[in-house]
Amino acid sequence: MDSNKRPEDMERITTPELANAFIDEQVDAIRAQVGDQKVLLALSGGVDSSVVAALLIKAIGKQLICVHVNHGLMRKGESEQVVDVFQNQLDANLVYVDATDRFLELLDGVAEPEAKRKIIGAEFIRVFEEEARKVGDEVSFLAQGTIYPDILESDGVKAHHNVGGLPDDLQFELCEPVKLLYKDEVRVIGRELGLPESMVERQPFPGPGLGVRCLGAITRDRLGALREADAILREEFAAAGLEGKVWQYFVSVPDFRATGVRDGVRAFEWPAIIRAVNTVDAMTAEVPELDWALLKKITARILDEVPGICRVVYDLTPKPIGTIEWE
Amino acid sequence: MDSNKRPEDMERITTPELANAFIDEQVDAIRAQVGDQKVLLALSGGVDSSVVAALLIKAIGKQLICVHVNHGLMRKGESEQVVDVFQNQLDANLVYVDATDRFLELLDGVAEPEAKRKIIGAEFIRVFEEEARKVGDEVSFLAQGTIYPDILESDGVKAHHNVGGLPDDLQFELCEPVKLLYKDEVRVIGRELGLPESMVERQPFPGPGLGVRCLGAITRDRLGALREADAILREEFAAAGLEGKVWQYFVSVPDFRATGVRDGVRAFEWPAIIRAVNTVDAMTAEVPELDWALLKKITARILDEVPGICRVVYDLTPKPIGTIEWE
Repeated sequence: MDSNKRPEDMERITTPELANAFIDEQVDAIRAQVGDQKVLLALSGGVDSSVVAALLIKAIGKQLICVHVNHGLMRKGESEQVVDVFQNQLDANLVYVDATDRFLELLDGVAEPEAKRKIIGAEFIRVFEEEARKVGDEVSFLAQGTIYPDILESDGVKAHHNVGGLPDDLQFELCEPVKLLYKDEVRVIGRELGLPESMVERQPFPGPGLGVRCLGAITRDRLGALREADAILREEFAAAGLEGKVWQYFVSVPDFRATGVRDGVRAFEWPAIIRAVNTVDAMTAEVPELDWALLKKITARILDEVPGICRVVYDLTPKPIGTIEWE
Repeated sequence: MDSNKRPEDMERITTPELANAFIDEQVDAIRAQVGDQKVLLALSGGVDSSVVAALLIKAIGKQLICVHVNHGLMRKGESEQVVDVFQNQLDANLVYVDATDRFLELLDGVAEPEAKRKIIGAEFIRVFEEEARKVGDEVSFLAQGTIYPDILESDGVKAHHNVGGLPDDLQFELCEPVKLLYKDEVRVIGRELGLPESMVERQPFPGPGLGVRCLGAITRDRLGALREADAILREEFAAAGLEGKVWQYFVSVPDFRATGVRDGVRAFEWPAIIRAVNTVDAMTAEVPELDWALLKKITARILDEVPGICRVVYDLTPKPIGTIEWE
């Protein structure tokens, strides 16, 4: 039987009971696969890798080595949450790498979106590879948060290889315990494993992180303004009960300044672009018709609290012609 | 008596009867002031200069020489309307100067907002001065669309001089027939003089025109995209009955590109920024809560009809902290 094909009679995991049955089954399967060997995992803080980490911790405890690479492009509080949940609450074997300076130095002056993505992706592999080599001799398995849509999208090809693009001398046997699950099932599992709601319901977040939302050539001051404005947006959407109702929402800040007036003095600062979309399949997306009071409150808070921002705009562009991200 | 002070017992001109009485009175006054001399007027196409032109044409016909300088930064159809109304309909003595190339060459590569404004303002004077010198020997008067708020704002100083900044050897005697009127009165007068509604109700438009809405360094292609997007916005606002209800609305296009997808191919094009404000005194301004259906229709049309635009955003920024214009 093809291990990458979800059995047709497999029940959709929608209840705590079904989730716990799956967890028990996978704990046994992981122990059988891994034995007393060690397992490496790149823990981004996203739903899939977080759930796989929690599952492996339950199965094999400190035989799992989680590596969290903070590329300096995380949203406000995200790396801190990864450390808090996995190191402090779940007592995981966590390697935390603050690679902010490495990434920002490489990205200095690079404005072209594809060039930025390539730099971030390649450097991410490089940093993870360095950590993998440190423990490579004692580790045989690489755990990954592959889910069933990943397999469907790649016709089953992608999941047979190290997704990370590690060099040939660093190939591990893969451990992908949620590879037959859909996203909603992964979330149910995550809840039963005790992960916090904000992590289980985390919005999709691009691999290059805020790097593709700090539009054009990234600078530390503009990246800082973006992070603060984005945090305000997420806070206000949560307070308005929109978390999980609007599919994705975030702020982008372009490398472009507009005129304003602050305390009677001319300001020449960045605009913050609010992007919110609803989608069924991510191939097309609609812009939600938000409450004006909410938009105005977010606008007022960003203008008041974020140094360097003197404008707030709302992106009205559906996909197509716009993409969800601005670059 | 101070000729720059509106008499306290002067009735507000709100009816056709009051307007016609004012027109008759001013026609006599202009004829008495000017005699058989010639009068020069810079005709921008704005409400004030258009009404003064129409009034002078009624009083002295072709003794008035109107100069319309098209700096290439007019909105779609505006210069054409000036020619149509004044040359074709009112049979005016109109000098039309297409100075597009001069302005755009001077502005080439200039990104700094204040530098752009200075270049546009200075070149405007230079072009008008050239036309004034051609007719200077035979002209004694300069007509201006000064209105009462201009006098109040300048404590009466501004209106005593050539507002245009012409050189000392080109000083004319001023003719300012609507200088004691408020804007709403000027509009009533304009209607009675037969000016089209779109000219009488024209929104305030900055002197540098689209030059300060084609943000950053102006290019012909981006200026063209801006002009088309702005025309769509005005057309849809008019169709929705918002003309005269929303105080000011326009499009700006920044010198910045975003990703999109057009016909399955990656696009890297400009965003169009919709700016709409309501204000009582222009010192503070609020963003109107427009119908989502209208915003989405405008967005769809701009994305569909304007080459080079792949995003549309709505500016949520009140004044302060934002200014009404983006630069």
